Amino acid sequence: MTSYDYDLFVIGGGSGGVRAGRLAGAMGKKVGLAEEFRMGGTCVIRGCVPKKLFVYASQFPEHFEAAAGYGWTVGPVSFDWATLVANKDREIARLEGLYRKGLDNSHVEIFDSRAVLIDAHTIEILKTGKRITADQILIAVGGHPNPHAALPGYEFCISSNEAFHLEQLPKAIIIAGGGYIAVEFANIFHGLGVDVTLVYRGKEILSRFDHDLRHLLHEAMEAKGIKIRCGEILKEVKRNTDGRLDVHLSSDDELVADQVMLAIGRVPNTKMLGLEQVGVEVDEIGAIKVDDYSRTTVGNIWAVGDVTNRVQLTPVAIHEAMCFLETAFKDNPTKPDHNDIATAVFSQPEIGTVGLSEEEAAKKFDEVEVYRALFRPMRNTLSGSTERMLTKLIVDAASRKVVGAHILGPDAGEMAQLLGIPIKAGCTKDDFDRTMAVHPTASEELVTMYKPSYRLIKGERVD
Amino acid sequence: MTSYDYDLFVIGGGSGGVRAGRLAGAMGKKVGLAEEFRMGGTCVIRGCVPKKLFVYASQFPEHFEAAAGYGWTVGPVSFDWATLVANKDREIARLEGLYRKGLDNSHVEIFDSRAVLIDAHTIEILKTGKRITADQILIAVGGHPNPHAALPGYEFCISSNEAFHLEQLPKAIIIAGGGYIAVEFANIFHGLGVDVTLVYRGKEILSRFDHDLRHLLHEAMEAKGIKIRCGEILKEVKRNTDGRLDVHLSSDDELVADQVMLAIGRVPNTKMLGLEQVGVEVDEIGAIKVDDYSRTTVGNIWAVGDVTNRVQLTPVAIHEAMCFLETAFKDNPTKPDHNDIATAVFSQPEIGTVGLSEEEAAKKFDEVEVYRALFRPMRNTLSGSTERMLTKLIVDAASRKVVGAHILGPDAGEMAQLLGIPIKAGCTKDDFDRTMAVHPTASEELVTMYKPSYRLIKGERVD
Repeated sequence: MTSYDYDLFVIGGGSGGVRAGRLAGAMGKKVGLAEEFRMGGTCVIRGCVPKKLFVYASQFPEHFEAAAGYGWTVGPVSFDWATLVANKDREIARLEGLYRKGLDNSHVEIFDSRAVLIDAHTIEILKTGKRITADQILIAVGGHPNPHAALPGYEFCISSNEAFHLEQLPKAIIIAGGGYIAVEFANIFHGLGVDVTLVYRGKEILSRFDHDLRHLLHEAMEAKGIKIRCGEILKEVKRNTDGRLDVHLSSDDELVADQVMLAIGRVPNTKMLGLEQVGVEVDEIGAIKVDDYSRTTVGNIWAVGDVTNRVQLTPVAIHEAMCFLETAFKDNPTKPDHNDIATAVFSQPEIGTVGLSEEEAAKKFDEVEVYRALFRPMRNTLSGSTERMLTKLIVDAASRKVVGAHILGPDAGEMAQLLGIPIKAGCTKDDFDRTMAVHPTASEELVTMYKPSYRLIKGERVD
Repeated sequence: MTSYDYDLFVIGGGSGGVRAGRLAGAMGKKVGLAEEFRMGGTCVIRGCVPKKLFVYASQFPEHFEAAAGYGWTVGPVSFDWATLVANKDREIARLEGLYRKGLDNSHVEIFDSRAVLIDAHTIEILKTGKRITADQILIAVGGHPNPHAALPGYEFCISSNEAFHLEQLPKAIIIAGGGYIAVEFANIFHGLGVDVTLVYRGKEILSRFDHDLRHLLHEAMEAKGIKIRCGEILKEVKRNTDGRLDVHLSSDDELVADQVMLAIGRVPNTKMLGLEQVGVEVDEIGAIKVDDYSRTTVGNIWAVGDVTNRVQLTPVAIHEAMCFLETAFKDNPTKPDHNDIATAVFSQPEIGTVGLSEEEAAKKFDEVEVYRALFRPMRNTLSGSTERMLTKLIVDAASRKVVGAHILGPDAGEMAQLLGIPIKAGCTKDDFDRTMAVHPTASEELVTMYKPSYRLIKGERVD
C-alpha cells in the first residue's frame, strides 16, 4: 500500500470527483486530482448553475408583464446579453474558486492537466509527462454534448457549451432535441427575446416523463410563442452568404436562423483516457462499465457520474462518489441507490417530478389511482396570465403508497425535492391526506386531492 | 328529525361554514346557511387571499432591482394603489361567486342576513324576522381584529380590514403588533413604498416561532428599511391639524404617520348571537367552548373555526368542518387533529414552519440534533441581494424523527407545506438523508445536511 504515491487519484474535477477527493482528503488519505479544464465540471462550468442563472434572467419579462395587473407601470425595458454573460462568468469563477479551496482545505493535490491511465496503478499527467502511482483510482470525467457529426453542416452548429458564451444573442435560434436541455434552452432563449424553433424527432417532447407534463408543457410553450416541430429532424445546415444558417428539415421545410443548437444527447468522455490499455471496459455507447458499487472491470479503478451513463445528474454523481468512499475506504460496501430520484426541468413553466409516471405505474400495478388538479395559480390571477398549474399524484391502490408525483408550474423543482422525502420513505396517500394544508399556497393542492380523478385497472382507464 | 326545517343550519359563510354546508348538501341533507356580509369569510374577503395578492404586488420592486444583475435595464416604474385595490376586489368578487355557486350546486339555501339563536333548534333570520328550525346547528362565524378600545385615539386607527380598502396609500404607517398579520402588512406596505414602523410590546417579533426565524426575519426586515421597535407599545394616538396622526409611544418617543394599523390579535365573533340564551358557553376571551369533536355545551350545536379560538387558520377550520360532518352525520366520530400544522408567514423573506421549534424540542426531548444551513439562495447571486436563506431541521436523537422544520427564504411556505407530509408521517432524518437532491434548488439543503450543526442535551447546547 505505502509504495504508491497516492491512496486515491481522481481523474476529473466535476461534482463527483471533487466530492470524492475532498472527503477522502478529509479522512486523512493522500489524494491527487487531475482536471484539464476548470474545476467544477459540467454542473458548475457549463451546466446546472449557469443554466439556472440564465433561467432567472429569462423570467424577468414575465415579471414585468405581470406587474401591470398588480398596479405597477414599468418604463421601457432592454436587455444586454453581454452583461448577463459577464456576470454569470464572474459567479462561475467564484464557485470554481470555492471548489478549489475545498480541495486545498482537504489537502488534495491538484494537477491542472489531463491525466491518462498507463496501467492499473499508474497515471500520466500529460502536461508535464510525470507519472504517478495510486492505490485506488476514480474516473469521474463526465460527458460532453453529442456533436452529431453525421449531420451535414454540424460544424456550423453550437451545443449547450457554446450557448453560455455566444458573442451575440441570436435573433432566431433553432434547437434540435426534445430532452430537458433542449427544452430548457428553448425557454431561456425565448424569454430573452429570441425567436425559437424546437425540432424533435419524437412524437412529444420529454420522453419518459408523465404524459400530462409533456403535453401541458408543450401547450404552454407554444402559447408563449415557441415553435415546436415534433416528428422532424434536421437534414442539413448551411451557412448563408449573409452569415445566417439555412436549415433543411426532414419535412423538406426550410428554416433560417442565426444559430442552430444541437441538444440530442450527451456522450461519455472515454476517449484518450488509456482505458483500453489497462482493461477498463466500456459499453456500446462508450460509457465505462461499472458494477453495483461503481467498480470498473479493473478492481482498483472506479468510475462515477456521467462517464458511467447511469443517471446523468449532479446529485447522483455526488451520491455515487460518497458510496464509493464507503466501499473503497471505509470497509462499508454501499451501493448507490438510483430509485425515486426527484428531478426538475427548469422550463417555463417548470417541471418537478419524482417516482413513476402514470404510464409506468399502470404497467407495474394492477390498480392505480390518479389524483390530478389543473388550476390557475393565484399569482396568475391579477397578472392575467392564463398559464395553468398541474399537480398529480400516482397511487398504488393495493399498498396505498404514493408512487409518483408530477408538478408543472412555479417552483415545481422545489416541490419535487421535498415530495421526494415521503415518496422515498414509502408514505401512503393517507399520510398525504392527514397533512394540514398551508393556505394560500400552490402545493396545498397536493394534500387536498381527496378523491381520485380516475383509476387505471390493469392499465385501462376507469373514470 | 323530520319535524325540523333543516337537517343542518350553518351560521357563517366563511371557510368552515361553507365547506360544512356544501358537503352536507352534497350528502343529500337539507341545509341552510346564513351570512350577513359576504360569502367567503375572513380568508377570502379580508384575509389570506387579498393579503397574498398584496404580497405579490409588493414584491415587484425587488424583481425590478434584481433585473440589473441579470442584464436588464428597467425604465422608470410607478405604482397605482387604486389599480391594485380594484383588481384585487374583482378577484375577490369572483371567488365569492364561486363560493356561492358551490353552495347552490349542493342545494344549500343561502340567507344573506345575520342569524341568531333563539333556542337549541331555532334560528331567527334577522333581516326578515323569519324563524326556522334545524336538527343540527353549526356556528362558524369567525372573528375580527381586536379594536384595542383601551388605547386613547383607537378610533383613528385602522385594522387589517380597512387596510384592504384604504382610499390612498399612506406615505408612512405605524403598525402595532408582532404577530404574523402585523409582520406581513409591514412587509407589504414597505414593498409598496410606504415608510413603515412596527411597534411590538414583546422582546422579539413572532413569538412562539423558532428563534432563528424570528431573529433572522427581524434583521432582514431592518436591512430593507423597516423600522422595528420591540419592547414598546402605543400609548396614545391623536389626529393632527394637518390630518396626520401623532403617536405617543411608551418610551415617550413621538412618531407621526398617515395611518396607524392595530394588529394586536383577533377576537371571536360571539356577541349578539344568542349564545347565552340557548346555553352555548364561551371562555374568558369570548371563544365558544367545544369538546374534542367541536361540540358546544349544547348537544346539537357545534362550532368550528376562529370562533372557537383553537388554531386560527383557514385549513384548520375546513378540517374541523369535515370532522364535524363525520361526527354529526356519518356516525363516524372524528376529532380534528391539531398537531404538526405547517404554516407560512408571507413576510419578505417568507417563513415556512412545521412541527416543534428548537426551544420546544429542547424541553420535550433529552437529546435534540439541530441541522442548520444559512446561505445565499442562487437567485440572489447575480441580483446582488445579500439576503440569506435559512433551512433548519430539528431531530429527536432517540427516535431519529424529524420533529420540526423551519425555513426563511423564497417559497418557504410551499416548502413547509410539503415538509408537513414526512413530518406528520413520522419520517426520520435517515429518510431525509436517503432522498436524492434536486440541483440546483434551495430545498436540496433540506436533504443534504448530513451532520448536526449542534446538539441540545437536556436543553443545553453542545457544539
